Amino acid sequence: MENFLYDIPTKVYFGEGQIAHLPEAIKEYGSRVLLCYGSGSIKKIGLYDEIIRLCKDHQIELFELCDIEPNPRVTSVNEGVRLCREHKIDVVLAVGGGSTIDCAKVIASSVDYEGDAWDIVLDKKKIKNVLPIIAVLTLSATGSEMDHGAVISNLETHDKIGVGHPDMAPRYAFEDPTYTYSVSPYQTAAGTADIMSHIMECYFQSTPGTYLVDRFAEALLKTCIHYGPIAWKEPENYEARANLMWASSWAINGLLKYGKSQSWTVHPMEHELSAYYDITHGVGLAILTPNWMSYILKEETLDKFVEYGINVWNIDKNLPKKEIAEKSILATREFFNSLGIASTLKEVGIGEEKLALMAEKAAASLSNAYVPLNKDDVLTIFQNSLV
Amino acid sequence: MENFLYDIPTKVYFGEGQIAHLPEAIKEYGSRVLLCYGSGSIKKIGLYDEIIRLCKDHQIELFELCDIEPNPRVTSVNEGVRLCREHKIDVVLAVGGGSTIDCAKVIASSVDYEGDAWDIVLDKKKIKNVLPIIAVLTLSATGSEMDHGAVISNLETHDKIGVGHPDMAPRYAFEDPTYTYSVSPYQTAAGTADIMSHIMECYFQSTPGTYLVDRFAEALLKTCIHYGPIAWKEPENYEARANLMWASSWAINGLLKYGKSQSWTVHPMEHELSAYYDITHGVGLAILTPNWMSYILKEETLDKFVEYGINVWNIDKNLPKKEIAEKSILATREFFNSLGIASTLKEVGIGEEKLALMAEKAAASLSNAYVPLNKDDVLTIFQNSLV
Repeated sequence: MENFLYDIPTKVYFGEGQIAHLPEAIKEYGSRVLLCYGSGSIKKIGLYDEIIRLCKDHQIELFELCDIEPNPRVTSVNEGVRLCREHKIDVVLAVGGGSTIDCAKVIASSVDYEGDAWDIVLDKKKIKNVLPIIAVLTLSATGSEMDHGAVISNLETHDKIGVGHPDMAPRYAFEDPTYTYSVSPYQTAAGTADIMSHIMECYFQSTPGTYLVDRFAEALLKTCIHYGPIAWKEPENYEARANLMWASSWAINGLLKYGKSQSWTVHPMEHELSAYYDITHGVGLAILTPNWMSYILKEETLDKFVEYGINVWNIDKNLPKKEIAEKSILATREFFNSLGIASTLKEVGIGEEKLALMAEKAAASLSNAYVPLNKDDVLTIFQNSLV
Repeated sequence: MENFLYDIPTKVYFGEGQIAHLPEAIKEYGSRVLLCYGSGSIKKIGLYDEIIRLCKDHQIELFELCDIEPNPRVTSVNEGVRLCREHKIDVVLAVGGGSTIDCAKVIASSVDYEGDAWDIVLDKKKIKNVLPIIAVLTLSATGSEMDHGAVISNLETHDKIGVGHPDMAPRYAFEDPTYTYSVSPYQTAAGTADIMSHIMECYFQSTPGTYLVDRFAEALLKTCIHYGPIAWKEPENYEARANLMWASSWAINGLLKYGKSQSWTVHPMEHELSAYYDITHGVGLAILTPNWMSYILKEETLDKFVEYGINVWNIDKNLPKKEIAEKSILATREFFNSLGIASTLKEVGIGEEKLALMAEKAAASLSNAYVPLNKDDVLTIFQNSLV
């Protein structure tokens, strides 16, 4: 186990109706709030009206940034920064999924920086102060509600880049599972795949002696495997929605990373896909993950896959190791398929044409991955994922 | 799953040599420090000298409260309070195991209260301000380094009582596994039993829908079962000491309680034993736990024991449920025995004479337990534990 500084400061109001505590959380930091949200689904479920009412009752002044995109763009960030400055905002309140929260994080981090917010994305050292962020979660997926990272897209440059800073962690997160009742089966599946990918990025590392965190990771994976299909079939199953929501936060809030190498593989590869094709992030991850697994399965990684197969998928431990490993990869693919997720890039409209370009960009950050990959490796994984 | 407010604020410097960060942690809060410690084992391992040196190098002034007892007494708390007032202390620094940290917590909570510190133990509402607490851990057991509770003994009244307050959580914990290298096999075993008991107190609850936290609990139990015997045999095995240390914090920092009923059973029973006989807390827990399990095993609890047996002890899931449950209890007993822990109260010098009195006192807080127990129930469990 490597040395680390554990620091997860976000307080979480978890459960149905906890939004009632929103005004007191906001008032710890001020009363002028930038409300950030996306397509308007928060209006359909009544959450928007509830927040307006709560804030009005407590003399909290709201200003709005809406229409934040599924892969949030730096143009939205810049608009949010403008609003914060114009209205002397005290608190940035993100209501939505990871995209909205990510956007809010970079807004909050850029208000005190004079240049374009994209500079902040490219270089977190430019961050001076970060406005307090509060997140109200409506989609279990990215875990942005409890971590200190954000991913922002730049459509001009076809870049989708992550940035992190300790002060970007939301001060409070509100996690009410009923807000996810209206999430479609498609988005439920994609969110579950995203959560699982966060866990696997941490799980598949070679740092020795990380037994406890690896068991935590398996606990989280089993939760996704148990409840993903239930939420997919029964959107208003509170227990399933609650466990998936709590899992989304713990998959990426840091617990699984502390003490381990932290170099991710599938996310950097997928970020290229969604930067160029704007596909659903979780779907991209689900397509790539089993192909990445098959590609890196070899003598040195065999034991890790055996552990994964036995502990996560309950594969018979008496089978030959190679067979357990292969069955675990197959189980991963079949699980994603069972949630109706596409198996190939073709199905989501991605062809051969940009694979080499995307592979080259992805490989730039994969030299220290669990199994280091160069551009040819990534291109092969992309090609194996095509059809 | 029940609603909750997640709030675990402690930052943890984990790993060998992290003590180097102690001065910067202290300096966030001031430079006048009350150093609390116990029997002097921190001198034997060189930690005392290291802290003296670090503080001297950084102009931090230390005042000392030593000889804090294994079951810390309110007399020590009052002495610490006196020192804090006399020397205008900014930070209470606890260096030791749970007893020292618990003592420091109640000192820090009592400085602004004019009466006897025992009043604070009996009524946390009397707590006004709590001085910042920093913990340097030398024994993996109570988890006090990352939670906001403390247990204090009063030898005059034969009371051993827990008190908790959100501000009692240490601001920083330093967890260096090498500090536990010198912990004896006996204390290593008792500490492991204590960690496991914290987990089981949370695990054995009847709140429905807590799948994820129950898997987290199993992850922690498996870690204790895996590494307890290794640390017992190889005291300087870093991996074992590190995993047990991190497990001790997560067993009780709140993660396993959020969303569940929180009424404990075995701890309140054991607190009576160690209040009257001053036995080692973890040993008392290990003696009582299997007897408590056998006593509460019935139709309504059967499924929970089956889950415990299969997921924690790898008992064959194809066996009849009753057999799995009984095997799980036997495995628990045998595990504690394998660490050299006594199986009976007689072995630790406890006879029949005070059982009824202790049972009556313990039962006062057990009416809402996982399986509610009255004084006759507790007396039976005590009697079953005698020989």
